[in-house]
Amino acid sequence: MQTDPLVADAPSSLESALAQIARDIDGLFEQLLASPQDARAELYEAMRYAAIGGGKRLRPLLVLATCSLFHVDRRRALRAGLAVECIHVYSLIHDDLPCMDDDDLRRGKPTLHRAYDESTAILAGDALHALAFEVLADEATHEDPFVRAELVSELARAAGPAGMAGGQMLDLIAERSPMDLAGVTRLQQLKTGALIGFCLEAGAIMGRVPQEGRSKLRGYARDVGLAFQITDDLLDVEGEQVKTGKRVKKDDAAGKQTFVSLLGVERARQQCLMLVDQAIGHLQGYGPEADLLRAIARFAAERDH
Amino acid sequence: MQTDPLVADAPSSLESALAQIARDIDGLFEQLLASPQDARAELYEAMRYAAIGGGKRLRPLLVLATCSLFHVDRRRALRAGLAVECIHVYSLIHDDLPCMDDDDLRRGKPTLHRAYDESTAILAGDALHALAFEVLADEATHEDPFVRAELVSELARAAGPAGMAGGQMLDLIAERSPMDLAGVTRLQQLKTGALIGFCLEAGAIMGRVPQEGRSKLRGYARDVGLAFQITDDLLDVEGEQVKTGKRVKKDDAAGKQTFVSLLGVERARQQCLMLVDQAIGHLQGYGPEADLLRAIARFAAERDH
Repeated sequence: MQTDPLVADAPSSLESALAQIARDIDGLFEQLLASPQDARAELYEAMRYAAIGGGKRLRPLLVLATCSLFHVDRRRALRAGLAVECIHVYSLIHDDLPCMDDDDLRRGKPTLHRAYDESTAILAGDALHALAFEVLADEATHEDPFVRAELVSELARAAGPAGMAGGQMLDLIAERSPMDLAGVTRLQQLKTGALIGFCLEAGAIMGRVPQEGRSKLRGYARDVGLAFQITDDLLDVEGEQVKTGKRVKKDDAAGKQTFVSLLGVERARQQCLMLVDQAIGHLQGYGPEADLLRAIARFAAERDH
Repeated sequence: MQTDPLVADAPSSLESALAQIARDIDGLFEQLLASPQDARAELYEAMRYAAIGGGKRLRPLLVLATCSLFHVDRRRALRAGLAVECIHVYSLIHDDLPCMDDDDLRRGKPTLHRAYDESTAILAGDALHALAFEVLADEATHEDPFVRAELVSELARAAGPAGMAGGQMLDLIAERSPMDLAGVTRLQQLKTGALIGFCLEAGAIMGRVPQEGRSKLRGYARDVGLAFQITDDLLDVEGEQVKTGKRVKKDDAAGKQTFVSLLGVERARQQCLMLVDQAIGHLQGYGPEADLLRAIARFAAERDH
């Protein structure tokens, strides 16, 4: 059987897929963030510092893995993945600020406001935020403007007050008033789930899957998003700073309720594995072309960083 | 002669146009920012606090005035105007933060981080930023997805590192190294000019004006943008806090070079009037349908707030 030329270079193992997407995303960022020949160069440097050479690139990989179900051109899928990574990176920059989580370490190096200063960090986050939409709306992302407009619409919704920004607000409130399991679940579905949901949605949009055909992909995204978050909470309790590249044990210090503080380590771990099984169950209708999505779901529970 | 029903309710005088757009934009913000029934309500309240009931709404008015040249439906033009106002308001919120300009007063009331706190202010700015693109990409803004995608693309470029965010960076640098007239002009063309340029561009995009037909509108935007900025600098020196609704004499205190510090009050005023004449000159090919744009250009120099 002949392989599809558009997905022929898609690596089969998760490890090589992660390595390849890291290179591709770094390459695209280098291209887009080449310094201009004036004083704005400092802003571009700060954006590159935060965006290049770190992170698991999980969100771009989810976009790519979903796109490959529908034989979407890899270069186009990468651009949609880059856009969602722009949003993710900007949210980390702002989240790390002194008035927010006040973090000094991110992806194994000083946070942006530590390496530069607070005002540059706020601006670099804002600039990456705008860049996400510039990338999506460009013809290079898709030839059909309807697809581009739908991508923009969904990403804006996922990033805005009804999505990630709303979840960040719930997170701020969580520091001063305790939350139950339903509250923490809701918080995480907005704070991290909305953007992960966009990754699958983006693949469906670019693959021209009609609305009614997207529910299983949405189910997968919901379950994988929560599984990732539970693992994050477990790593915050049990993980090592050197592997995660960020400060650990900070939820407890901030007095925040998490899946682990509410369920305990053992039940949280079980819940996470159950979510992974459920996520993989949503992919039943797909064959080996969904193996990367299955591997990402397992990685959600098994990763140590 | 029968008036076009789509522009029949467009007021003829600048004063009534400003009053009407203020009502319309406030109404749209009220609609879009209705509080959800959960803890995110605090975020929506903060967004409403910053977005509603203040500001000249100059940018939406520029979009509307340009759209009316091409008989664009007023409700659609308003949505594009709302999007650019979302970006403008978010930029003011972030610009007022302690690590940026550290301002306590904006539009005659305490700045958002004073009324709430810094973290809420950062989030509310971020949420308004995303909202701008959600509004533009929505079908209600234009039935043609090509127009929606072009609007998104242009606004993202105007707001991002090659536009407004880049100008903000130059502004931060201006505090530590002196600038000449060319430097200040460049700074302002990015910091405020790019977004004003988008307002005219948006009208041209929605009016389906081909690229080659947009150069006069771009010339108008460039001149009006600079004229507005020079008046801002003059008001900072000569204006009254009670009228401008923000702290005055702050450029001098920050040691920043402005058009006024570089040219002196008299030459700055002359330069401003020259730019207004030049802006109006760009509209020569248009008849009375461009009277509102002409009035806005004069207002750029004559306003006292």
